[in-house]
Amino acid sequence: MPEMPRVVIVGGGFGGLSAARALRKASVRITLIDRRNHHLFQPLLYQVATAALNPSDIAVPIRHILSRQKNATVLLAQAASVDAAANKLILSDGELPYDYLVLATGATHAYFGHDDWAPFAPGLKTIEDALEIRRRVLVAYERAERETDPERQREWLTFVIVGGGPTGAELAGALAEISRHALVRDFRTIDPSKARILLLEGGPRVLPPFPPELSEKAREQLVRLGVEVRTGGQVTAIDAGGVSIGAERIAARTVLWAAGVAASPLAKSLGVPLDRAGRVPVTPELTVPGHPKIFVLGDLASLQQDGKPLPGVAPVAMQAGRHTALNLARAARGEPLLPFRYRDKGSLAVIGRSAGVAAFPKSKWSGAAAWWAWLLIHIFYLIGFRNRVLVLMQWAWAFLTWQRGARLITGGPPDEKKPPPTSSPA
Amino acid sequence: MPEMPRVVIVGGGFGGLSAARALRKASVRITLIDRRNHHLFQPLLYQVATAALNPSDIAVPIRHILSRQKNATVLLAQAASVDAAANKLILSDGELPYDYLVLATGATHAYFGHDDWAPFAPGLKTIEDALEIRRRVLVAYERAERETDPERQREWLTFVIVGGGPTGAELAGALAEISRHALVRDFRTIDPSKARILLLEGGPRVLPPFPPELSEKAREQLVRLGVEVRTGGQVTAIDAGGVSIGAERIAARTVLWAAGVAASPLAKSLGVPLDRAGRVPVTPELTVPGHPKIFVLGDLASLQQDGKPLPGVAPVAMQAGRHTALNLARAARGEPLLPFRYRDKGSLAVIGRSAGVAAFPKSKWSGAAAWWAWLLIHIFYLIGFRNRVLVLMQWAWAFLTWQRGARLITGGPPDEKKPPPTSSPA
Repeated sequence: MPEMPRVVIVGGGFGGLSAARALRKASVRITLIDRRNHHLFQPLLYQVATAALNPSDIAVPIRHILSRQKNATVLLAQAASVDAAANKLILSDGELPYDYLVLATGATHAYFGHDDWAPFAPGLKTIEDALEIRRRVLVAYERAERETDPERQREWLTFVIVGGGPTGAELAGALAEISRHALVRDFRTIDPSKARILLLEGGPRVLPPFPPELSEKAREQLVRLGVEVRTGGQVTAIDAGGVSIGAERIAARTVLWAAGVAASPLAKSLGVPLDRAGRVPVTPELTVPGHPKIFVLGDLASLQQDGKPLPGVAPVAMQAGRHTALNLARAARGEPLLPFRYRDKGSLAVIGRSAGVAAFPKSKWSGAAAWWAWLLIHIFYLIGFRNRVLVLMQWAWAFLTWQRGARLITGGPPDEKKPPPTSSPA
Repeated sequence: MPEMPRVVIVGGGFGGLSAARALRKASVRITLIDRRNHHLFQPLLYQVATAALNPSDIAVPIRHILSRQKNATVLLAQAASVDAAANKLILSDGELPYDYLVLATGATHAYFGHDDWAPFAPGLKTIEDALEIRRRVLVAYERAERETDPERQREWLTFVIVGGGPTGAELAGALAEISRHALVRDFRTIDPSKARILLLEGGPRVLPPFPPELSEKAREQLVRLGVEVRTGGQVTAIDAGGVSIGAERIAARTVLWAAGVAASPLAKSLGVPLDRAGRVPVTPELTVPGHPKIFVLGDLASLQQDGKPLPGVAPVAMQAGRHTALNLARAARGEPLLPFRYRDKGSLAVIGRSAGVAAFPKSKWSGAAAWWAWLLIHIFYLIGFRNRVLVLMQWAWAFLTWQRGARLITGGPPDEKKPPPTSSPA
């Protein structure tokens, strides 16, 4: 019996984990490495940032998910580069030989060349990002409560979200609900419902991946929640005191970034041309051109289908992961690889209580119907029975009481260990 | 109508919060200040450290607890000192005049003059402490899994808890259960159930505040869970490689501190003599000698009753808080203060599944009965219906599956932002 081929998967997100699980009956030895110990259900990360859910409700140890899959080993390790000539993955503290390599390291947020904006406008990609955003939002209300100067108080009560895609719209809607409901009775000198929440989108409409009529529905629902929606103006500066759009200045102490993404830097070591966002243009079989044993999937891959780029969303990564597993099993048997084809089952975005939009291949929904569809689908796809039940319970609680259960400021008191950059006198 | 007296309460723990709530019908204006935004249910903090519960399950925004109490204002602020002559509390960024002051800022862990041990042996007083301990414990198993040298692997799988009081015993029992059950199937190269868990107590027996026969029961139950219990040996050194007890050396990569406590430094500014742990020796009415308008309670106060010092536990702080509220109302009406008397309703410590000890005034329990009593009492005292239900659910899940739901390593990947001090080559 020949030795089983070694499959090394880098990244325990939707793409890498789907590939690993779909290989559970294949005659391969899988090593999945990730620098985090947990798989993150990223579509709900904004709910951690807005105090509705706990980190562990949407994150599960990768090791635990694969504990019964005997052909899989999980390592907590950091991939540094790929040595394609030697069939080796270089780690920050070692190396890992492979027969097949699957790269699924995803993307992080990017500031379009303005990395100096990062401290003033945190993005939302990790648990730590979400807790930092939660901390800043809650601290802003606390600061406003203690501020006696009305001008400065207004600045603490102004929240700007840059980027009108699904994450930005979801954040804006959630922040509006918090200010209008969850916090409304808790303060004595400020009225949280007077908080200004601005959603800035550089393009002509919010939710650009959705059909125009749903973008319009989403805008209407956001406005109804109390969000000011601005489209068509490019942000030109972000600092401790606020945001500039050309000559216009918005004074705000809390700015959140939901605009650009850039692929993980691991792709650079492949030595092939990358696209503008740093992604790997892959073959239809999801391999790196010239390297048929290296697969790339999820947000790290760039692929056109029917003349349009595939979006960086979980369903694309999951389908690509399962397809790659199929191709790996075929390759191990000496059969040719099959091209990948994404089947769009629909996309959803939720804006607030009973508000959202849904674009299915044959119909478009908005309002309560879209919200219910979103709820059921997200519960269904959450990994682990325990998490499904806990998330459902917390949502039910939040729905009935308008309260948010995870309103903790952690990471140290604001004055002490970790002053938010906006706290310095501007 | 005369102006209502201003009561400033410093600290939103069990003592301060009990005082504030008990004053809800009093004709006073209450300002409660805390440098954290949350009240912490500290008796369950070790369950966050051992991945059984989420931070927000045991922490609730103070502001929210008091949101309907119209005579109370909550401020997120840091108290710096007391200016007793001017009746003012000095904040890090302002000051607050008072007619009556209630100091309930509690205690933190102390290293008996060995502050250099702190980075190698974190203590357990805050949410951040608990998440740091959780991170170190989970990272230790990950490191062991990747370690090829058996000697070093053993060091990563050795966990030392210094201090055999309730917190130390609870931590040790929980760590033993994790290694024997929750993690047992998840690794490929190590056997987590081979992990060594040592509980070191300098005195002659574990759980010193309990009667000797319960200490013995607790020791038996810990040993049955797989914990090595060592009593009567003083720790003389702690560093990145382990712990020394005189000439003996225990090589361990994870050391946790559950030994000493020291009162919050705010007491120093009162200008009265403090006891060795920095606590304020108070009058029977819980006031500072010579300052009848300043009350001190909880872990910050030192008081003898029937020749024995009152222990630093939640029930003492809560009863003292309610008593202080009564005295404040009396003082506001011009009536004399009444002395405080603590009524001991019993103490409990839990060691593991169906294991624990309970000392009630008229009976002593151990094993499953003590465990059930602990469970019911802790659920009953958890603040908020939502938290009670969520905690119960997570405990039920953990009991049925032996799993722990919050096994997240957060705070950045171990190699990157925040290397544990033990990760440097020793």
